[in-house]
Amino acid sequence: METILLNGKNLTIDKILKVAKEGTKVEIAPEAMELVKRARKLVFQLAEENVPVYGLNRGVGWNKDKKVFSKYFEEYNRNLIYAHCVAAEPEASEEQVRAIMLVRLNTLLLGYTGIQPEIVNMYKEFLNHRIHPVLPLRGSVGEADIANLSHIGLAMIGEGEVYYNGVRMEAYEALKKAGLKPIVLGPKDGLAMVSSNALSAGLGALVLDEVNNIIEIANLVCALTLEGIKGNITPLDEKVNKIRGFSGQNYCAGKIRDYLDGSYLWRRDITESLQDPLSIRCACAIHGAVKDSLEYVWNKLINQLNSTDDNPCVLLDERKIISCCNFEPMTWVLGFEMLGIALSHLSRVSCNRTIKMANPSFTELTRFLTPSEGEVIAYGTIQKTFASLDTEIRHLSNPATVDYLSLAGDIEDHANNSPFVVRKVKKIVDNLRYILGIEALHAVQAIDLRKKLKYEENIKLGKKTKDAYEMIRGEIPFLDKDRNLTEDIKKIYNILKSEEFLELLKN
Amino acid sequence: METILLNGKNLTIDKILKVAKEGTKVEIAPEAMELVKRARKLVFQLAEENVPVYGLNRGVGWNKDKKVFSKYFEEYNRNLIYAHCVAAEPEASEEQVRAIMLVRLNTLLLGYTGIQPEIVNMYKEFLNHRIHPVLPLRGSVGEADIANLSHIGLAMIGEGEVYYNGVRMEAYEALKKAGLKPIVLGPKDGLAMVSSNALSAGLGALVLDEVNNIIEIANLVCALTLEGIKGNITPLDEKVNKIRGFSGQNYCAGKIRDYLDGSYLWRRDITESLQDPLSIRCACAIHGAVKDSLEYVWNKLINQLNSTDDNPCVLLDERKIISCCNFEPMTWVLGFEMLGIALSHLSRVSCNRTIKMANPSFTELTRFLTPSEGEVIAYGTIQKTFASLDTEIRHLSNPATVDYLSLAGDIEDHANNSPFVVRKVKKIVDNLRYILGIEALHAVQAIDLRKKLKYEENIKLGKKTKDAYEMIRGEIPFLDKDRNLTEDIKKIYNILKSEEFLELLKN
Amino acid sequence: METILLNGKNLTIDKILKVAKEGTKVEIAPEAMELVKRARKLVFQLAEENVPVYGLNRGVGWNKDKKVFSKYFEEYNRNLIYAHCVAAEPEASEEQVRAIMLVRLNTLLLGYTGIQPEIVNMYKEFLNHRIHPVLPLRGSVGEADIANLSHIGLAMIGEGEVYYNGVRMEAYEALKKAGLKPIVLGPKDGLAMVSSNALSAGLGALVLDEVNNIIEIANLVCALTLEGIKGNITPLDEKVNKIRGFSGQNYCAGKIRDYLDGSYLWRRDITESLQDPLSIRCACAIHGAVKDSLEYVWNKLINQLNSTDDNPCVLLDERKIISCCNFEPMTWVLGFEMLGIALSHLSRVSCNRTIKMANPSFTELTRFLTPSEGEVIAYGTIQKTFASLDTEIRHLSNPATVDYLSLAGDIEDHANNSPFVVRKVKKIVDNLRYILGIEALHAVQAIDLRKKLKYEENIKLGKKTKDAYEMIRGEIPFLDKDRNLTEDIKKIYNILKSEEFLELLKN
Amino acid sequence: METILLNGKNLTIDKILKVAKEGTKVEIAPEAMELVKRARKLVFQLAEENVPVYGLNRGVGWNKDKKVFSKYFEEYNRNLIYAHCVAAEPEASEEQVRAIMLVRLNTLLLGYTGIQPEIVNMYKEFLNHRIHPVLPLRGSVGEADIANLSHIGLAMIGEGEVYYNGVRMEAYEALKKAGLKPIVLGPKDGLAMVSSNALSAGLGALVLDEVNNIIEIANLVCALTLEGIKGNITPLDEKVNKIRGFSGQNYCAGKIRDYLDGSYLWRRDITESLQDPLSIRCACAIHGAVKDSLEYVWNKLINQLNSTDDNPCVLLDERKIISCCNFEPMTWVLGFEMLGIALSHLSRVSCNRTIKMANPSFTELTRFLTPSEGEVIAYGTIQKTFASLDTEIRHLSNPATVDYLSLAGDIEDHANNSPFVVRKVKKIVDNLRYILGIEALHAVQAIDLRKKLKYEENIKLGKKTKDAYEMIRGEIPFLDKDRNLTEDIKKIYNILKSEEFLELLKN
Repeated sequence: METILLNGKNLTIDKILKVAKEGTKVEIAPEAMELVKRARKLVFQLAEENVPVYGLNRGVGWNKDKKVFSKYFEEYNRNLIYAHCVAAEPEASEEQVRAIMLVRLNTLLLGYTGIQPEIVNMYKEFLNHRIHPVLPLRGSVGEADIANLSHIGLAMIGEGEVYYNGVRMEAYEALKKAGLKPIVLGPKDGLAMVSSNALSAGLGALVLDEVNNIIEIANLVCALTLEGIKGNITPLDEKVNKIRGFSGQNYCAGKIRDYLDGSYLWRRDITESLQDPLSIRCACAIHGAVKDSLEYVWNKLINQLNSTDDNPCVLLDERKIISCCNFEPMTWVLGFEMLGIALSHLSRVSCNRTIKMANPSFTELTRFLTPSEGEVIAYGTIQKTFASLDTEIRHLSNPATVDYLSLAGDIEDHANNSPFVVRKVKKIVDNLRYILGIEALHAVQAIDLRKKLKYEENIKLGKKTKDAYEMIRGEIPFLDKDRNLTEDIKKIYNILKSEEFLELLKN
Repeated sequence: METILLNGKNLTIDKILKVAKEGTKVEIAPEAMELVKRARKLVFQLAEENVPVYGLNRGVGWNKDKKVFSKYFEEYNRNLIYAHCVAAEPEASEEQVRAIMLVRLNTLLLGYTGIQPEIVNMYKEFLNHRIHPVLPLRGSVGEADIANLSHIGLAMIGEGEVYYNGVRMEAYEALKKAGLKPIVLGPKDGLAMVSSNALSAGLGALVLDEVNNIIEIANLVCALTLEGIKGNITPLDEKVNKIRGFSGQNYCAGKIRDYLDGSYLWRRDITESLQDPLSIRCACAIHGAVKDSLEYVWNKLINQLNSTDDNPCVLLDERKIISCCNFEPMTWVLGFEMLGIALSHLSRVSCNRTIKMANPSFTELTRFLTPSEGEVIAYGTIQKTFASLDTEIRHLSNPATVDYLSLAGDIEDHANNSPFVVRKVKKIVDNLRYILGIEALHAVQAIDLRKKLKYEENIKLGKKTKDAYEMIRGEIPFLDKDRNLTEDIKKIYNILKSEEFLELLKN
Repeated sequence: METILLNGKNLTIDKILKVAKEGTKVEIAPEAMELVKRARKLVFQLAEENVPVYGLNRGVGWNKDKKVFSKYFEEYNRNLIYAHCVAAEPEASEEQVRAIMLVRLNTLLLGYTGIQPEIVNMYKEFLNHRIHPVLPLRGSVGEADIANLSHIGLAMIGEGEVYYNGVRMEAYEALKKAGLKPIVLGPKDGLAMVSSNALSAGLGALVLDEVNNIIEIANLVCALTLEGIKGNITPLDEKVNKIRGFSGQNYCAGKIRDYLDGSYLWRRDITESLQDPLSIRCACAIHGAVKDSLEYVWNKLINQLNSTDDNPCVLLDERKIISCCNFEPMTWVLGFEMLGIALSHLSRVSCNRTIKMANPSFTELTRFLTPSEGEVIAYGTIQKTFASLDTEIRHLSNPATVDYLSLAGDIEDHANNSPFVVRKVKKIVDNLRYILGIEALHAVQAIDLRKKLKYEENIKLGKKTKDAYEMIRGEIPFLDKDRNLTEDIKKIYNILKSEEFLELLKN
Repeated sequence: METILLNGKNLTIDKILKVAKEGTKVEIAPEAMELVKRARKLVFQLAEENVPVYGLNRGVGWNKDKKVFSKYFEEYNRNLIYAHCVAAEPEASEEQVRAIMLVRLNTLLLGYTGIQPEIVNMYKEFLNHRIHPVLPLRGSVGEADIANLSHIGLAMIGEGEVYYNGVRMEAYEALKKAGLKPIVLGPKDGLAMVSSNALSAGLGALVLDEVNNIIEIANLVCALTLEGIKGNITPLDEKVNKIRGFSGQNYCAGKIRDYLDGSYLWRRDITESLQDPLSIRCACAIHGAVKDSLEYVWNKLINQLNSTDDNPCVLLDERKIISCCNFEPMTWVLGFEMLGIALSHLSRVSCNRTIKMANPSFTELTRFLTPSEGEVIAYGTIQKTFASLDTEIRHLSNPATVDYLSLAGDIEDHANNSPFVVRKVKKIVDNLRYILGIEALHAVQAIDLRKKLKYEENIKLGKKTKDAYEMIRGEIPFLDKDRNLTEDIKKIYNILKSEEFLELLKN
């Protein structure tokens, strides 16, 4: 059975997916554990020397001026966990909790934290025994997700609730069943568990995967649309995109060409429209711009996942623990804001393409793709559905990162709202499944109607678009008469979300 | 047993609450039913005369150029219902469905619709038999909520699903159980059922009640805060507010004075701070501005609830059916946008008051209201909770009403997104329960700590604030040591949402 | 020569226009001056009794804990003026400065300020001698406009710069020329001059007048558009709007009917389209919703203009000076936010109407209203112009009121950004002049083209629309061949801004 | 004298600055001109073969279905220029016009346009003769800036107005004076001149330079602030930033360390605060995140400046002219949106640092940095100034790119609003000059006050911070008593904008 070996340096989004979704187990690289132990030793040495260190022998936040005496380390750190349990619904899914714990575990392995090695090990045990603390998702301003990560600490000391093998129970009960002992907290342990961006980063990693998929889905659906409207494929030309230079544009043009491989659109005798509407003509550049945005934030997040976000930071070679700003996630949070705006464009052009498909002057097909004008209304009102969901996306794309308050006696006078920013993008992607889904419904209907045209008997689809067409039509038949479309909308949403459909997108 | 008599002219938000929440039954005023019948007769006469009427013998939306022949009336209207079932999750609660049906029923009674009387009656039967169609909430751009109201029509013709006495089942089954016969649709019936703002207006009415309550809660919590910080009550002075003139400000100042009736704050010997922070000093004006906003939208919505939003509109005296714009809800939707912005201020000042209570320089109490500095962290991290929820509110307060697409062959080139705008305000109110709840937690803790001060042994609370204090302390004890505050947050949220607490606010 | 008598109670926007724009002189009602004097006397009495009063014998803002001794009153108040001169460009126009001074003068007359009567008189002198302090417009967070109003105080003590009869000069020089003596400041005078919303309220009054005009312009232009496209006037029907009830909608429908009085559109033989696009059909309701918003903020602003916004507030009868929140303008600032959103709808529907006029399928005229398809491009690219200005309006309509920082040692932890919010609306209105102007260009072109149609020889315009048509065509001839349209855009903007055009709108 | 040789492939922002600001002349690489000529030849060949090509022998936009006959090429292209002159005020500065012309010239040299070589040459002549067309800046939706670039075409055919050696005159007059002949337009020339993103990209390049400078200014001002408050420099440590990995953060930490080289802050005996407020402690990470954003958009814009944005695109080797989407600028426009949000953080933390400097509990200096508490108010009210400008920045940071309308008969159903997005960032930077300027005023005042403290006689500044300190104090003396601060604000703004100050930032 596959396990993933963690050392703090090579975590990928793919590995996060495996651990979070498929339950793959993890191991800790011995040399990493060695670093953890050495850092812990240093913490004790400095504590004994009574060097003032934030969160070690001094309080946190505004209480940084308050001393913490060593005999109270356990009590102080337990209290710290309690006082940091300040989260609000909704609760994270088990998948999400796994991603969060994995991310925190990985960055601990770099040895800059000074946490006790038993806790590091406990993250591994929780993952491998499927002990998933109940963790409400709201409450963090994203300058380290202390309000939520505390709930993992709570479970590790045997308090609060967890899911164990899918069953909700008291944490101490789960620990017992799993043969684990609660952690006894020592110096800096409380801070070490809560002061991290692991919630935002873990959820962010899951969302970036969703964004990556939705771009592919958009490319494929757009390919179907091109076949539905007999669109001009010239703008997908390899050379003409290459001389423009933008990598995302080239990537998406390439993907759409691949999806259309073998399609009737490449036939010489197809009379091309001189210039399709921009939502179609510029699709590869627009989808490509989203891809460029994704690439930016993806790279920044990979950096986040494989570097320390601890403060204070334990520097082994220098034998000191120093105050720093490594918990500041702003650079990749900005990327998520850009990504949200990028996706609002993806949404808008999908809507506009769908509107075009319902318009005979762009398709030479029937109005609203009805099989029978005057008798079947077909896709008239469904325009409201995607338009209203697009409105939500436009709203979600408004930035939120800078809207923070000055907290903790004015000490914490900057924040990023990273969990909220990540959540906005997740919600955008979910709405996009409906919007692209309705585009897909139009595209397959347009293809079917086009096939029925006398002079178009030979509509051969591309290899991939054919697969997609068949997967959709396998569940949603041709709209030959009006029916409850709320059902069709639900179905296409589920198709686009299914593993089968995502599998189809891969080469 | 109370029933509510409807005639199209005197529906109030209070009545909606009774029908929606308490299940009060409804009756239809006979004179109103008479109007409905006369209008129906006129519809048939005009259909026979073949006067072209939108949605009667002509299609709707872009299909307004397509004729509908009388022998196809039933089929056409059924198809219209089907094609308008284009909604997306989440599903409305039963309470919400009741509000929606009630609102649609009331405006039908004005006799401007031309709908068949049996359908009018069916709304009543559905309400009184507790037949609640399954109705997904998203999909409307708010220029009449056609994408969702269609599901009520669907249930009335015996299709789709409903809740009947709380159990989900097929609509035809529920009808049978209730001894009702499915409707057979006639001319204009489909349009008459879907072309209405009843979803937005019904949900809007429920939300306005929530807003009204949250303003009262804010006034009461602010009163507690004043007692917690020994605030200056001069700005609540009746005269000084009266000469300013704004009605909301005067109202809220009066309410806070009432809540504080009997409080130690009115004692002569209290040394007043010269000027409290604005979040406290200006509270009555800020809450009052929210009240003014509420009053604006409340009045406009009452107009909406008691006037026709039909198009085309059946004018009995003039014997014609004319095209109009009475479905346009923009004026009250704008009010909801303003209300969202107003509430973002309410949120922000509550946060700022709470921050003040944690700051000894404003309270002369301990930092973070700890019972023991250095040992108990208390309300340090909880600032992240309300700050992050306030960020969400700031984001929700961004407008969305104008972000629409041009639909239906460019015919429907205006919209309001009213359901989304209403939903935004509902979500804001829900977050405010947490934010004001955490303010309340601080206030009662500050009161307790102040009582412990040697020189403050005589802290007498106001009549109402004392009731509130006791209700809270009945469930959430004094924070004498650190504990899992996620639990306290959940509790105070539930208290503020409870009927008992709302009851306490009333005189 | 007309003068306006001020007493603090009956200032109207109309009077502000007269004083600000036409230079009408002002007088002070003797009974009001009597109040001013009595309040001043009370201030001295309390100062002598050494009752601690904010801004009198105590500092302002965070310095409210600092004593101010009477022998330093002059120096302290001068320093206060200096320290409050913290504004940034651009400078107010002379018209704007007049509005601001007038508004401050009026509210002083209610006798709640305690300012020295000589200063009250000086406002009058400045207005009547046309001494207009140089006053940069930015720098206020709108919780009283202290950063800017200080510049008026500066000029009154003979410092800084002013315009005197249109010439910029040192203030002391202007005072000398006008035969006035600089003010010698006494207790509370500094605060009394700066602590007021007179900047926001004065500018707000001017802007509301502009909004009022732009709604009329929109109604008239829409009437022209109806004539250009031979639109359906049924939705303007008096009865059908009356039963809907909304006052703005009824008002605008009435105005458009008036403008169209005598138009060919009322002829029986006109074949009406069954349902025009919503931007046309719903125009009266949409414009009406803007009117409703305007009415709300108008009424609130009138209240602001005629009530005290002083803090602390001198209560004569009670013989005290008390801390209050009467400087809080939030309720009417929210109205301006709503108005901005409302106007974004006005903009969007104007754009959509213009797009319709360029589309033969809605007009039966030529594409882009060209006089000659294939030879003249006409109004193709001009769509970018109004679309880009509409984008700016959408952006301006985003709220800003709640985006404040906590200032002055966290004492000033609420604000409204009222000057910025007012400025946003002003900018929106200015963009609307272009957008409605381009709609008007299309409408008159459509009318001209329609007249040329063989079967439409009898296109008679309404009385008012004919006047407007002729005023436009007097400067901008029929577009018979392509020409530099940047020039036409400039011209129509100027026409819509001209007094002549506004005059035409009146009955 | 330096000239810049252009070949379409190596334009940099630095070169743009030289040409735009310093008037450096340009030359065209002969091999590039060769490509231009060959492409032109191909255009004529295809025109003769009557291959339908958009904008060549077919109309543009919705008129793509209209034929253009070769005998009308001149007239058609002239009309196209006229009809595309649809811009609105304000007019571009001469500097901006130069940047725009340079950018368009450079991309023409890649040989994908098919424009006549004389026009290419004319761009060079205009630049080198300082002929600068009057070019209003608004009117483009940013999907190629056709509404504005047209004015350059207008001037080239000898119409409209230009500045020639700084004097405004008729274009034909300027051409005559410069010894140039007006262009006679041929096929595709009109489209070639207008269909480009040169306006957005040219202005964008100028703005990116400003952003680059403002980041450096922020780093320097922050260094001054650290010296003013005796801040903890630990978070600037090289090692601790390196292990975090983000490049912008490492860059900015390095720069701040450099600016502080030699500062007293590095002395061993400085007692460091355990953790400064985040606005100070995280400054290098926050400024660094802005730098990362800048790097993203910078790289994308360099790609834009050196690649074709023509449509249709002339492919020499393939001997065809094909429809494409290379005019789509979305990927770098998104970067500008992100940059705006990033800068809103820069603004907010500068404000918060300034607030801290006015607060004795963070500085151990006086309140509002007064030289004399109780007598001098000093920097109290000035907080409103930066707070209100920060509010504007927050508002400007709202996205606008996706708020477009569907134009040109629904063909142009996507846009980016690139000129507006670029302008937003420019305005943000301008406001930042005030905000950072006020921070700088505080920092030098704090330094001066700290020097006066008995126990701090030895406050040695860093090498660069000392230079900056002296440059500021050279114009703005120590605030020893209250004075008109509007003047100081103006001065510091001008200092930060001056070339001298920017020069100082360089190594």
